[in-house]
Amino acid sequence: MVAAKDSYSPYSNGITVSPLTNSVINLDQGDPVVFEPYWKKRSDEYTTVIKGNDLMSYMSDPNDVCWFMLPETKYAIKRIHSLVGNAETEDKHIVVGAGSSQLFLAALFALCPSDSSQPINVVSQAPYYSEYQDQIGFLGSRLFQWGGDAALYDKNDPYIEVVCSPNNPDGIIQEPVVKSEAKGKLIHDLAYYWPHYTPITHKVDHDVSLFTFSKCTGHAGSRVGMRERWEKLRAAIGQSNIFTAANYPKAYCNFTNESSQTYPGFAWLKSDEGIEDAKSYLGKLNVLVREGNRFSAGQNYVRVTMLGPDDVFNELLARLSNAKRL
Amino acid sequence: MVAAKDSYSPYSNGITVSPLTNSVINLDQGDPVVFEPYWKKRSDEYTTVIKGNDLMSYMSDPNDVCWFMLPETKYAIKRIHSLVGNAETEDKHIVVGAGSSQLFLAALFALCPSDSSQPINVVSQAPYYSEYQDQIGFLGSRLFQWGGDAALYDKNDPYIEVVCSPNNPDGIIQEPVVKSEAKGKLIHDLAYYWPHYTPITHKVDHDVSLFTFSKCTGHAGSRVGMRERWEKLRAAIGQSNIFTAANYPKAYCNFTNESSQTYPGFAWLKSDEGIEDAKSYLGKLNVLVREGNRFSAGQNYVRVTMLGPDDVFNELLARLSNAKRL
Repeated sequence: MVAAKDSYSPYSNGITVSPLTNSVINLDQGDPVVFEPYWKKRSDEYTTVIKGNDLMSYMSDPNDVCWFMLPETKYAIKRIHSLVGNAETEDKHIVVGAGSSQLFLAALFALCPSDSSQPINVVSQAPYYSEYQDQIGFLGSRLFQWGGDAALYDKNDPYIEVVCSPNNPDGIIQEPVVKSEAKGKLIHDLAYYWPHYTPITHKVDHDVSLFTFSKCTGHAGSRVGMRERWEKLRAAIGQSNIFTAANYPKAYCNFTNESSQTYPGFAWLKSDEGIEDAKSYLGKLNVLVREGNRFSAGQNYVRVTMLGPDDVFNELLARLSNAKRL
Repeated sequence: MVAAKDSYSPYSNGITVSPLTNSVINLDQGDPVVFEPYWKKRSDEYTTVIKGNDLMSYMSDPNDVCWFMLPETKYAIKRIHSLVGNAETEDKHIVVGAGSSQLFLAALFALCPSDSSQPINVVSQAPYYSEYQDQIGFLGSRLFQWGGDAALYDKNDPYIEVVCSPNNPDGIIQEPVVKSEAKGKLIHDLAYYWPHYTPITHKVDHDVSLFTFSKCTGHAGSRVGMRERWEKLRAAIGQSNIFTAANYPKAYCNFTNESSQTYPGFAWLKSDEGIEDAKSYLGKLNVLVREGNRFSAGQNYVRVTMLGPDDVFNELLARLSNAKRL
C-alpha cells in the first residue's frame, strides 16, 4: 500500500502519466515544494533526530503563554526574525500552532470581546485570501463573523481587520484600510514577508502578527528560484498576450542590502479583454487554478501558485507561451 | 535562555527544590511521562530521523479523506490496531490531527446537521471528562452546544452522545446511555482503550472512534508500571482510611491472553465521610489535583493522574500513607 502511493504527485491530480504534457496540472494551492532541491542538497546538514524518549510530556514550559512549545523552538523563531530583520520579537509572546489556520482562529478568539451580544465583524481588503471567509464561518461562531471587504466597511460596530502583506493573492504591500470610526483591532498576516518574496524594509511591530514556516523555509537568503521563475513567467505571458501580471515597485531590502521588487508566491493574472472567465480558459489548457471570485475579484482574474516543482512550472510556461485565443 | 529552562519540571509547578518533599506536586493533568524510562532504554531503536527535504508538501495523498497524512502513518495506525486488536480499521477512514481536541471538534462538525436552526446538544454521562464542555463552548458555535449529563437527557431534539470508555475520570467501561427517542449520533472517545490500562475484550467497530498517541505509546505490551502503581496506591490509601478508590471487574484480555482488571491512567478517589472537599484536603498536603465538580461529580471526589514520573508518584504515596485526619 505504501509503495503504491509513493509515486503519487499532488500536482498532477493523481494521474502519474509521463510525459507531463498530457496531464492536468494543479496550480490551485500554494504548496512550497519549489524549495525541495535546495533542502535535498543540504539534507545532511539539516537533519532532525527525534529519540524514542523525546517530547513525551505535553508540557514544555507552563510559565509560557504557549506552554507546549519547546524553549529551543522559541529561541530559533526569535533568532530567525532577528537575523532576517522582518519582525520585532522583544517583549512579544511567541505562540506556535499546527498550521496558521489554528493560530488565526486563536487570534480571533483572543481579540473578540467576550461580553458582546453580537458577533464581531472580521474584514479584509479585496482581493483577499480565499480561505479567511471559510475559516471564520466553519463553526458558525457567535463570537465573530465574516464582514467582507475592509475597504467597504462603514458600520459603527467594532471590527477586526486582517491585513495580509504581501497580499495573497496579488502580492501588494498593504496597510489597514477601514475608515469606520468604530473601534478596530488588527491581525497582520505576514506569511510572505520573507526576503525571497519581497524586500524587507522594516521590522514589523504589530500586536498580532502571523507567520508560517511553510512559506519561510526556502532559506531566506537564497534569492534563487523565485525571482527566476517570475522572469520566465513574464516572458511566457508576454508571448501570447492573453494574460497580464501586475508590476511591483522596487524597494531596498535590509536583509540582502540591495534594491529589488516583490516576487510573490502566487501570480495574480488578469485575462485580456474578451476573455471573461480566466479559470475556464486555463482549464481548457488543463491548468487548474483558483478563480478570482474566490478572492472577491472578477472572473477575469486567477491565482496561480509559483511554488510547485520545476517540471510542473516549466510545463505551465510551455502552455502559456503557446496559448492562442481559443 | 534554553539552558535556564532545562531544569524545569511541570510536576512541581515551577519550583525545582530538592528534596521533592517540600514542594507542591501537580497531579491535575494526564501527562504520560511515566513511560519515559521505557523509551529511554530503547531510545536508539525508536529514533526518528527527518531530513531537511522531507515533509515539504502540504499534500501526502489528496485522494485520501485526510490528505495531509503520510501513507506510512496510516499504515502504522492500522497495524497497531490490528496487532492490539482494539479497533476494526477495515473500510474505515483514518484521520489524524494535532491533539485529539482538534479531532473532537472535527467530529462534531461532521456529525451536526447543517440545516438546523438550533445547535445540536452534545451530552456525556457524568462523571465526564472535564474538557468536553470547554472545547464545545470555546467558539460559541451555532452548530453544537454542551447539553450536560447524558443520563439525564430527555429532550426530543437530536443529540450527539460522547461515550468515553474506559471513562476519564473514573475508569469505568461505558456504553451509550441516552434514553431519548430523538435521533442520536455517537462519538466514542477511546483514549484509554489500550492493554496497559484495561483488558482488550473486543475490536470496537463504531462510526467515529477517537484514539490518541499520547495515551498509547507506553508500548501496549509492557504491563509494567501501571499495574504496579495501582497496587501501591491502594496500599497507601488503605493505611490512612481517608480515601477510597473504586474496584474494577476482571475481564479476559485478547491481547495479553490473561484475565486482568482496568488500571486507569487516573485514580478517581472518593473522600471519607466528614471530608466534604477532597481537593482542599489534598491541597493542604501540597498535592494539586482536579476537583470532582469539574466532572459533574461531588466535591468529595478528585481525579489524580497516575502517569507522572516515578519520584513524584512515590512522593504522593508517602503523603497519602502518612495522612491523618486534619
